[in-house]
Amino acid sequence: MYTKKRISRLYGNIEEKLDAIMIKNANEAFKDINFFYVTGLSKGLFEGSTVLVYPNGKFDMIIPELEAQSASKSTGNILVYKDKEESEEILKKSMKGLKKIGINFSGLSYQNYIKLNELLPKIKLIDISMALSKTRAIKDDDEISKIKKACSIADKVMESIRGSLSENMHEYEISAEINYLLQKFGADRPAFDTISSFGKNTAEPHYTHGNTKLVKGDFVLFDFGASFEKYNSDTTRTIVYGVASKEQKLMHEVVKSAQQVGFDSLSSGIKGSEVHEKVQNYIDETKFKGRFIHSTGHSLGLDVHDGWIGFSKDCDIELQENMILTVEPGVYIPGYGGVRIEDDVLIRKDCAEILTHSSRQLIEV
Amino acid sequence: MYTKKRISRLYGNIEEKLDAIMIKNANEAFKDINFFYVTGLSKGLFEGSTVLVYPNGKFDMIIPELEAQSASKSTGNILVYKDKEESEEILKKSMKGLKKIGINFSGLSYQNYIKLNELLPKIKLIDISMALSKTRAIKDDDEISKIKKACSIADKVMESIRGSLSENMHEYEISAEINYLLQKFGADRPAFDTISSFGKNTAEPHYTHGNTKLVKGDFVLFDFGASFEKYNSDTTRTIVYGVASKEQKLMHEVVKSAQQVGFDSLSSGIKGSEVHEKVQNYIDETKFKGRFIHSTGHSLGLDVHDGWIGFSKDCDIELQENMILTVEPGVYIPGYGGVRIEDDVLIRKDCAEILTHSSRQLIEV
Repeated sequence: MYTKKRISRLYGNIEEKLDAIMIKNANEAFKDINFFYVTGLSKGLFEGSTVLVYPNGKFDMIIPELEAQSASKSTGNILVYKDKEESEEILKKSMKGLKKIGINFSGLSYQNYIKLNELLPKIKLIDISMALSKTRAIKDDDEISKIKKACSIADKVMESIRGSLSENMHEYEISAEINYLLQKFGADRPAFDTISSFGKNTAEPHYTHGNTKLVKGDFVLFDFGASFEKYNSDTTRTIVYGVASKEQKLMHEVVKSAQQVGFDSLSSGIKGSEVHEKVQNYIDETKFKGRFIHSTGHSLGLDVHDGWIGFSKDCDIELQENMILTVEPGVYIPGYGGVRIEDDVLIRKDCAEILTHSSRQLIEV
Repeated sequence: MYTKKRISRLYGNIEEKLDAIMIKNANEAFKDINFFYVTGLSKGLFEGSTVLVYPNGKFDMIIPELEAQSASKSTGNILVYKDKEESEEILKKSMKGLKKIGINFSGLSYQNYIKLNELLPKIKLIDISMALSKTRAIKDDDEISKIKKACSIADKVMESIRGSLSENMHEYEISAEINYLLQKFGADRPAFDTISSFGKNTAEPHYTHGNTKLVKGDFVLFDFGASFEKYNSDTTRTIVYGVASKEQKLMHEVVKSAQQVGFDSLSSGIKGSEVHEKVQNYIDETKFKGRFIHSTGHSLGLDVHDGWIGFSKDCDIELQENMILTVEPGVYIPGYGGVRIEDDVLIRKDCAEILTHSSRQLIEV
């Protein structure tokens, strides 16, 4: 009802006669997290900031006054601006004499691309989005230690949250408790909207939490992560509130075994799609054939879905050492419930190190 | 140290010889919140989804299978796709015969713009970002009621969080408690990274929270909001832990009076810059001249910084009825501390309705 009025007002605000309006809801954040990747900064917002990275490894940060203190934690050169005009002047000056610069086309709005082109008409802009993804897929020691810390925070929360369940509790209460514990144990914030679903809601992979009350015999699914100094973890556990039925035990056993099939397949050199196929095939040979409706996992890092490599049908990229991904098979029966188990793994030469350690058993509380 | 290696690997991943790489960290989210504005949906993620809005007020949503249930809460036509190819086919089919469509250039990455142009080579794409901002600046009844709900949740948290302060408590503990209460009182999530700062940290407007411990005599600054069905509130209060000094009382009094100057100036027809000037001038006539270092307020809605209109030096846009903005003067003394008081207001014809109601007094706890 409101939408009709909104749309009418929107068309009223447009001079050109249009046949339609298209709004795309994309996956990435306009705040380009690569800013933090190349500067190594772990605090601050840095809205309206630009970093210029030179082949010699040095970099200039053009930042608003407000971020000067946060920026001083980086090794880069700091150029502070007071307003938009000054920021453009500094940018032009820094770019003087340059001919070709790399830009993350997937991290820049089309509007900002146009502005940039107007501001720097003589400079050729080259897309480096793929190079950024490839580079970020391989984690360095600093990144690995931050992700391990994020994993260990989530582990602690996972082990303690079970004790908070009680009959008739709402899903959103458990979600609030999880988020509280994440921060208490050292996370800067939850890595994404925490999922805590009960009963048949567990059959919806993208369900977060609502007003549903906990009833004996329910599946309880927790899917959350910690964000620690911009790096994320992502873990899922499914348990039963009360005594598990035979069917619930079977579902859980199949998913746990499927995940083990995934773990066992991991080593550098195997393609993302091959891992997914092995896990998918395992589930499709059980009575839950066709009930695994998403990919087996994704790359993890500064973004929760860190891109490029994943355990999915279409990914023919080979695993390399020091990649970090999730392994998260699931089985979903609409109207009944679902089971998903998810852990984060660090790819080694001949195996993978599992980074998340809370119990994977079917716990009955 | 890590950054140098990263940059070297990044350059190693790029074939073209570049003079530099530029990464811009913009303000907007790639997940275009306008998707929710025109569909009226308040739940779901809708990643990779597209909405086509026609002049007659009807709309088609092209969405992945996972979102079908969430989408059914909208009045639009639902077109479900299974994979990327099918989504492109549906899009092409829907666009058949159209000549010119509006696009939010500020909500679409340049990469996605290129892809769209390739997919629909015969259709002219027109920028409607300004029209979206103008439309969204005026809130309808549904939006006002959601923002009021978000304000009342934040009010409740603000009134109760003071009771949680105790000596030697860490900033991050209070932040965790605020976020917990926000969800407990009905928020879907915090509207933004909650700020809870103590002592001299209160002098940094963008500081969020850290390991600092609470000491008697500290300023304590809370700046947070509730997100309710995608709509946000944004409130700040500054209090003193223990007995306030004469200087602290004076700082607080000046900021509170400056805010009142802002409130008193509000009515439809006044320019954003005029409100800011009045508040700025008030502070600059006190001993805290030059200590108010940011703008007086911003538009509030689906985004916390909802864009277009604001109480800032450069904004010559006139206020209109049913705009919602924040009024948030502050005074900051580096190394000593800061005071900010922030409330959300709904512009009426001859005045403004204040939507946030927790006490604005200098409370000593």
